[in-house]
Amino acid sequence: MREPLLININNTVFLRDDTLIILDRRRFPHEVVEVVCSDYEEVAKSIENMVVQGAGDIAITAGYGLYLAARQMDSMVGIDIEAARTNLLKAKKRLINTRPTGFHIAVLLNHIIKKVNWSQYNWSVQILECINLVIKKQDIRSELTGKWAETLVQDGDCILTHCFPGSALLHMLQLALKHGKKIELIATETRPYLQGARLTAWAVSELGVPVTLITDSMAAYCMSQGMISKVFTAADRIALDGTVANKVGTFQLALAARYHQLPFYILGYGGPDKYCESSKDIPVEQRDSEEVLVFNGVNISGKKVKGFYPAFDLTPPQLIGGIITDRGIISPWEVNTYWSLPVDIM
Amino acid sequence: MREPLLININNTVFLRDDTLIILDRRRFPHEVVEVVCSDYEEVAKSIENMVVQGAGDIAITAGYGLYLAARQMDSMVGIDIEAARTNLLKAKKRLINTRPTGFHIAVLLNHIIKKVNWSQYNWSVQILECINLVIKKQDIRSELTGKWAETLVQDGDCILTHCFPGSALLHMLQLALKHGKKIELIATETRPYLQGARLTAWAVSELGVPVTLITDSMAAYCMSQGMISKVFTAADRIALDGTVANKVGTFQLALAARYHQLPFYILGYGGPDKYCESSKDIPVEQRDSEEVLVFNGVNISGKKVKGFYPAFDLTPPQLIGGIITDRGIISPWEVNTYWSLPVDIM
Repeated sequence: MREPLLININNTVFLRDDTLIILDRRRFPHEVVEVVCSDYEEVAKSIENMVVQGAGDIAITAGYGLYLAARQMDSMVGIDIEAARTNLLKAKKRLINTRPTGFHIAVLLNHIIKKVNWSQYNWSVQILECINLVIKKQDIRSELTGKWAETLVQDGDCILTHCFPGSALLHMLQLALKHGKKIELIATETRPYLQGARLTAWAVSELGVPVTLITDSMAAYCMSQGMISKVFTAADRIALDGTVANKVGTFQLALAARYHQLPFYILGYGGPDKYCESSKDIPVEQRDSEEVLVFNGVNISGKKVKGFYPAFDLTPPQLIGGIITDRGIISPWEVNTYWSLPVDIM
Repeated sequence: MREPLLININNTVFLRDDTLIILDRRRFPHEVVEVVCSDYEEVAKSIENMVVQGAGDIAITAGYGLYLAARQMDSMVGIDIEAARTNLLKAKKRLINTRPTGFHIAVLLNHIIKKVNWSQYNWSVQILECINLVIKKQDIRSELTGKWAETLVQDGDCILTHCFPGSALLHMLQLALKHGKKIELIATETRPYLQGARLTAWAVSELGVPVTLITDSMAAYCMSQGMISKVFTAADRIALDGTVANKVGTFQLALAARYHQLPFYILGYGGPDKYCESSKDIPVEQRDSEEVLVFNGVNISGKKVKGFYPAFDLTPPQLIGGIITDRGIISPWEVNTYWSLPVDIM
C-alpha cells in the first residue's frame, strides 16, 4: 500500500530556493507539473486558478505567500518596521481575497500576523516557523478527524464522497483498512474541475480501497440500488447555525441521501467559523462562467449560451447527520459545543 | 428567430442515395459531421454509439435501419417471402437490442412489421411509407405535447431542464414566446455526453430564449436561490405505476425540486408503455464505463479506478407533478387514463 501523495500538504506544496513550488492539482493524476511562485502575487493567482484546492491546503499555501512577501521585506536594506508591516498587511489582504467562501485563509493569516514580533526583524523566519507549526497542527487535526470518522465506518460499507475532502478521508479509510474493515468508495467526478475523478478516486485507489467513479448525477440512482451506505464530504465553512458550505453538488447529494435514509456526514476538521452566524453570512464564490462553458479548451455549447458557476452550495443542518471534527462528532444543531470539547492528544 | 435544427427529425436523420445519413449529435453544435449507414448493422452501431439520441428519434432511426434491410431483400433476385421475413425479423431484433431502456424502438418496429403485406413484395417501399407516416404522426404528437406543456408556462418562468427532451420542449417555448410570455431556460450540461450543453442549450438559444448552462450538480443551489420556477424533462419510458425512466440525473433533480416545492413535469409524448407494469420492469441500460472514465479522449482518473455508467434512472410518481402527453396532462398516479383521453386534432 502506497501512501497517497495528497495525504500531506508538503508533498505537493513546498519551498525550494525561496520560491514556492505547487504541484498543479488540475493536472493530477496523469502529470506532475510544478507551478513556481516567486512572490505573493503569483501565489494569489495560483490559488485563484485552483492550482491548489481544499480549504486547509489553500490556507497553508496562502501562508507561504505571506512568507514570500516577508522574505522580500527582509531583503530590503534599511526598511523600517512600519513600512514592512504595511506591505505585509497588503499582501495578507490580497491573499485573503482570492477565495471568499472558505474561512481558513483569513483565520490562518490573521493568526500569523498576530504572532509576528515586529521589532525582532527576520519576519520571514518568524512566519515560516509559524507555518511549520500550523502544518504540524493541521496534520494532527486531519488524523484526529479521520480517527473519529472511522468510528462511523462499518465493515462492508460503501462510502460516497464528493470533490476531494482532504486527508481526513484518507486517514479514515487507512484506519478502517487497518482494523480489517472491508470498505469501498464511490467518488463523484465533481464537475467542472473533476477533483473527484482526478484527486479523490486516484488517492483512495492508491490506498488499496476499491474505487468506482460516477458522474455527479448518478449518485441518487446508486443510492436507490442499495450501492451506497454512507456519505462523507468536507466543508469549506460551517456556520454557527449548522449550515455547511462545500463544493457545489454537496447539497444535492445531501437531499438524495435524506430521501434514501442514508447518513450524511461532514468532515469538519477544526469545527465551525465562530464569526459566522448563519448561512446568510457565507459568501458563495461565483467563478468565471467560462469554466462551465469550456471543457479541455473546447466550448461545449452554443455561442449565445451563458454560463453560471457557483463554486459552492449551502447544505442546511436538517440534512446533516453529524459533523466530525478533531475533537469529536458534533450535532449540526449545536456546533458551538465544539469549543467545549476537550482537545484530544494523540 | 431561426427554427432549431433539432425541431424536426428529418433535419438530422435522412436518406440519401439509399444510405441513411445521421448528423452526429455528439459533435453538435460546433461541427456538422455526417455518419453514413449503408446497412442496418451500421444503423444499429450508430444508435449504440449515441450518434442519435432521444427515445423517439432513436426509434425512427431504427425504422430506417429496417428500411435498409428491406432494400437489400428487395434487390435480391428470386428471394422467397419467408427468407425475406426471417431476415427482416433478425434485423428488427438487432435494432431493438441496441438500447434497452426506451420502449419506442420495439413499439415502432413491431408496428412496421405488422403493417407489411408480405405477398405484395416491394417491402422497402411499404416500410418507407410507414416510416413517413409515423414521422408525421410523431411531429404532430410533439407539437401537441408542446401545446399542452405551454399551458403550464407562466410569464416570467425560468425553466430547468436536463438532457435534450426533444422537440416538444422547443414547441412549448416557441408557443410561449408567441403568446408574449417572458421566459428563460437553465440547462444542465448532462454528463457524460453533455447533451444538455450541446443540444438543448444550443437549440433553445437559437429560438431566442435566454439560456444559462450549469453543471448537473448546481441545480439544487440554483433552486435554493430562487432562480428556477419549474422543471421539465422528457421520459424514455413511463411504467403503468407512474415511474419515469429518463436520462440519469433526472431523479436527483426531481428530489431537489420536491425539497424546494417546485413543480416537476414530464414531457411524456405518446404516454406510458402499456406492457410495463412497474419500475421493476424497466431495464436500466448500463453503458461502457470507459465513457465515464475518459473525457475527450483523456482518462480523467487513476489507473486502478473503475467506472460505472447507468444511462438512465427511475423517478417515482410521488416526485412528479404531472405527465404531459399529446392528449393532455395526466397524473403520474393514473397514467392509464391516457388511453381514455380523446385524441386531439390540431
